[in-house]
Amino acid sequence: MNHPHPAPVDLAAAKRPFPDALLAALKALLGERVSTAAAVREHHGRDESPFDPIAPDAVAYAHSTEEVVQIVRLCARYDVPIIPYGAGSSLEGHLLAVQGGLTIDLSEMNQIVSVNAEDLTVTVQPGISRKTLNEGLRDTGLFFPIDPGADASIGGMCATRASGTNAVRYGTMRENVLGLTVVLADGRVIKTGSRARKSSAGYDLTRLFVGSEGTLGIITEATVRLYPQPEAVSAAVCAFSSMGDAVQCVIETIQLGVPVARVEFVDGLAIRAINQHSKFTLTESPTLFFEFHGSPTGVHEQAETVQALASEHGGQGFEWATQQEERSRLWSARHNAYFAMLQLKPGCRAVTTDVCVPISRLTECVVETEQDLKASPLPCPIVGHVGDGNFHVAILVDPDKPEELLEAERLNQRIVERAIAMGGTCTGEHGVGLHKMGFLVSEHGEDAIDVMRSIKAALDPRNLLNPGKIFRMPA
Amino acid sequence: MNHPHPAPVDLAAAKRPFPDALLAALKALLGERVSTAAAVREHHGRDESPFDPIAPDAVAYAHSTEEVVQIVRLCARYDVPIIPYGAGSSLEGHLLAVQGGLTIDLSEMNQIVSVNAEDLTVTVQPGISRKTLNEGLRDTGLFFPIDPGADASIGGMCATRASGTNAVRYGTMRENVLGLTVVLADGRVIKTGSRARKSSAGYDLTRLFVGSEGTLGIITEATVRLYPQPEAVSAAVCAFSSMGDAVQCVIETIQLGVPVARVEFVDGLAIRAINQHSKFTLTESPTLFFEFHGSPTGVHEQAETVQALASEHGGQGFEWATQQEERSRLWSARHNAYFAMLQLKPGCRAVTTDVCVPISRLTECVVETEQDLKASPLPCPIVGHVGDGNFHVAILVDPDKPEELLEAERLNQRIVERAIAMGGTCTGEHGVGLHKMGFLVSEHGEDAIDVMRSIKAALDPRNLLNPGKIFRMPA
Repeated sequence: MNHPHPAPVDLAAAKRPFPDALLAALKALLGERVSTAAAVREHHGRDESPFDPIAPDAVAYAHSTEEVVQIVRLCARYDVPIIPYGAGSSLEGHLLAVQGGLTIDLSEMNQIVSVNAEDLTVTVQPGISRKTLNEGLRDTGLFFPIDPGADASIGGMCATRASGTNAVRYGTMRENVLGLTVVLADGRVIKTGSRARKSSAGYDLTRLFVGSEGTLGIITEATVRLYPQPEAVSAAVCAFSSMGDAVQCVIETIQLGVPVARVEFVDGLAIRAINQHSKFTLTESPTLFFEFHGSPTGVHEQAETVQALASEHGGQGFEWATQQEERSRLWSARHNAYFAMLQLKPGCRAVTTDVCVPISRLTECVVETEQDLKASPLPCPIVGHVGDGNFHVAILVDPDKPEELLEAERLNQRIVERAIAMGGTCTGEHGVGLHKMGFLVSEHGEDAIDVMRSIKAALDPRNLLNPGKIFRMPA
Repeated sequence: MNHPHPAPVDLAAAKRPFPDALLAALKALLGERVSTAAAVREHHGRDESPFDPIAPDAVAYAHSTEEVVQIVRLCARYDVPIIPYGAGSSLEGHLLAVQGGLTIDLSEMNQIVSVNAEDLTVTVQPGISRKTLNEGLRDTGLFFPIDPGADASIGGMCATRASGTNAVRYGTMRENVLGLTVVLADGRVIKTGSRARKSSAGYDLTRLFVGSEGTLGIITEATVRLYPQPEAVSAAVCAFSSMGDAVQCVIETIQLGVPVARVEFVDGLAIRAINQHSKFTLTESPTLFFEFHGSPTGVHEQAETVQALASEHGGQGFEWATQQEERSRLWSARHNAYFAMLQLKPGCRAVTTDVCVPISRLTECVVETEQDLKASPLPCPIVGHVGDGNFHVAILVDPDKPEELLEAERLNQRIVERAIAMGGTCTGEHGVGLHKMGFLVSEHGEDAIDVMRSIKAALDPRNLLNPGKIFRMPA
């Protein structure tokens, strides 16, 4: 039997009562769409973090904004916490029901509400996944670029301010959400932003809800930006003899202003995992994956510039993938890297780091991190959205061995402290959840966290919405 | 003597006392750098809006974050309002001391703190102007792209979420501020964001302060993104036979994904003003100004695509400006359009509209607006950042004629209502100030404004920071 890896919360202190009367009222409202079955609760009380699940008391499946309003009002009446749930792919314990309560599963609110091809925008329900969205857009010639590793829901991606491999060119959820429909803690519904590309009309509520991890409101609709499918696309893979050389090549690419669409770093160990998982035969050394978007001549020009930079840094075997199929295979291998890495150590779980530093410090940060990892007994493959200064170490732990969990947290702490000391952040794209609450204080200082707390208290005075995440509230 | 054009506030109800003891304490702190001279107060109680000045009780010139802290603490002790002041170039009454109080002039905090060329970032004090910043960056090969018409201060541009002609390519202040140092209403100092390009570390306080118009905190330092000077630049001017044709050409350019750096619409009347003011001989018909940035071949390709689109819409006399001097002359004419337009009607002031609509509605919006303007007795030149869906009508009024002011507000109201009905915003880049408080409610609804109010109350419970702007607080 596995040793537990409990989330860092005092459950005994936190759990709130879940009255039978609330359950009865939810059943009256939703019928079969509310469940207290153990399997359903357990499934909703976990995410992709290494923490043991903490199940909610019940799970409700909402089908409309109006239903979310009714559910929130009922929970508010009984002072019961509410946790919004999309695809369950978050990585920092965001979904664990640390104070009990009701999980609202939004995965059945998964429709495209309207495509505005002329405006390059689409309005969607929160439960639609990024892949389903792009499949739905196929005939429009447009696409939505943000691509975290998992097939996350758009609502969840808003909530964690997600990004992925395309952010270096297209930005993150911060830049790509134009407006939201949000159900507040008291059941009021607001619409933030507009479909205009820019606005100075009051406080930026859209950006406040983006990254609020379900603690300020429940997102029930989102309008996001789309982009024309590029006329030409090419991809390339290039191996380097050291991490430092690979990262330096990226830094110079960015500093030259080359509008590269993707540039991903994968270390030798992660390449081995990808080779095994996706049947590739890539050289098992530090590697960059590139993608270029633009006109045919633009793509050619970008690729030439980058290939020259790679050569200067000893890059070898620049391999091109110009056919759509080849490219898809390459990028799907990159996207599956997380699951491939898990297979390096059967039965393991991953403690995943997510620091992001100013790009001038990236080589130093990665090289020092590599030294830490080499000195550790744990396998620690590295992948990174290095064009943004963001990289992930997947620290592979045997959940039966508490000493490995301790070692993973020790490594994580060193990596985060180094990033913050370099002017960076403890999380580039995964969010804070339960796991990074302490680091958030180191990064921003108590006064800034107090400002966040006062906003939370103003919008959710009874601390009903995903309580216990991002920061602790005074009792 | 001019008839007054008072701002829409009840001064008698609003004015708060300014105790002698506060003035004495400020003089002890700042010496000569606090003033109650009528000319100084009057100068700080106005902006570029058509409203009559409302002078603060005193003006203090701060030289450091620590001084701002001391000043804020003193004002808080005496319950006296505080208005941050940069260049005085705002357009909606942002700087008028509607409840009296102290204006903190930050224009002497105008230094570049540090340039991080490798990271493409610069950290500045808030009082530096955008032109001074770019002069200071000249040797780095980098530039800061955001360019409102006036030579505004960077702090003021953060506070109003400014943009300008480059936003279509480089974004607005929303996308280009990485982090801020902010003095809160109680004198605490926080640093938001980091120098990393992206982060999911807690609530997006940076974006909350960007666009908060001095009502949530006083910005005393800002870190903003820079861009490499493009390898090649070319500019062009093209005249059209109708507004609709010109705007349709822009819409198709954006929808094709052409990464145009600037695309500005100027109507025939505004061209006449520019011709007179800047000694040009442009055809006095609806005109687009373009600028293309990139590699030499990229620029050539973009320009060819756009020239073909322009021809399809009857664009004539596509004139190129490839030399730096020619381009500078062209764009400085465009930047001076506001002042040029004022000279169309000697002694006039401008009521400036600032709507922004989804680009699919832009032609309809501009054409219907043109019909309104033709039916009005007032001269109303139009300029627009049409690549963003944003355009400005400068309604030229004789301040001696109250009926003209009424007519201007009538036109403004029609234009804003139309934009909101089309899914747009009442202000693309100027902010709300005093002038658009009513429209803000129409645009977002009372519940969303209540969320803004509750954030304001949480961060500034005594309503000390630029009170009476953006929305009304309950008494």
